[in-house]
Amino acid sequence: MYDDLLSWCPVAGVSHGPMLGSMTPITPPSITALTLGVRDVQRSRDFYVTGLGFREISFIPGEILFVQAGFGLLLALWNVESMPGEYGQVGHGTLAPPLSVGHNTASAEEVSELYAGALAAGATSVSAPTRREWGGTSACVADPDGFRWDFVHNPSFAIDDDGTVTGV
Amino acid sequence: MYDDLLSWCPVAGVSHGPMLGSMTPITPPSITALTLGVRDVQRSRDFYVTGLGFREISFIPGEILFVQAGFGLLLALWNVESMPGEYGQVGHGTLAPPLSVGHNTASAEEVSELYAGALAAGATSVSAPTRREWGGTSACVADPDGFRWDFVHNPSFAIDDDGTVTGV
Repeated sequence: MYDDLLSWCPVAGVSHGPMLGSMTPITPPSITALTLGVRDVQRSRDFYVTGLGFREISFIPGEILFVQAGFGLLLALWNVESMPGEYGQVGHGTLAPPLSVGHNTASAEEVSELYAGALAAGATSVSAPTRREWGGTSACVADPDGFRWDFVHNPSFAIDDDGTVTGV
Repeated sequence: MYDDLLSWCPVAGVSHGPMLGSMTPITPPSITALTLGVRDVQRSRDFYVTGLGFREISFIPGEILFVQAGFGLLLALWNVESMPGEYGQVGHGTLAPPLSVGHNTASAEEVSELYAGALAAGATSVSAPTRREWGGTSACVADPDGFRWDFVHNPSFAIDDDGTVTGV
């Protein structure tokens, strides 16, 4: 097990971070999973596994699907009706949820490739690959539940060997 | 730059993944960023940077905040009013968004520590650390916009050195 990642701390070695009342330094959470509430788990499996090619880790029909979504990162597609038991009053409204899941690419061409691949898998186009005023290129699609995926080429974006992100 | 991560492919070396019409193997997206739509970017900065100790990468007052959220992973807090230009009709509804951002820990004690730290930083409790029927322990809090954070100890969860997640 990659224990360093389970307790990965972006402030370690850089600073002790802010202090919270006492002199105890704060270790912030680190994201190792993202769970999206979906209306039809099988439909999500058709889209994410069959359509987009994500590696399935485990699947409980009608309940939840786990796929590998990045380095040390899970994506869970969970029956939205099961969420309130653990997450309280959450649910889909009339607008799509105000968030996006993003994939930063090494080139503008990859943005177009990911965009085309997502549409072929059944995503809905929100914005075609577009040169943005901040100097990069991005495209946006919606998954079957409306969750946005953003494919982004930011020329200055970089991930160091230790996982540190710079250039945004 | 850690180019391998920018083009990290969880199916490479394992299989060629599903095929899409032709014989071209699919390379799924990988998550390198998560963007949440927030009502007050400064309030998000107070919570995520000052309160929770995330490392700030960049900040445009009133518009967007980027913090380091994991290995090769960005968390962006973006003014929700700016989102529709790129993401279409997204927004907050009467219920909290149906998702959670998760941090898998190496012990149940860490779940309690993260839960307490988040409350101290101004999060709202949704569920205190609870032993779950699936054999682990989790707790849930809401950030200032209602976005859920889930702190989870799943004893079988593991991240291999190559970033592959197993045990869920």
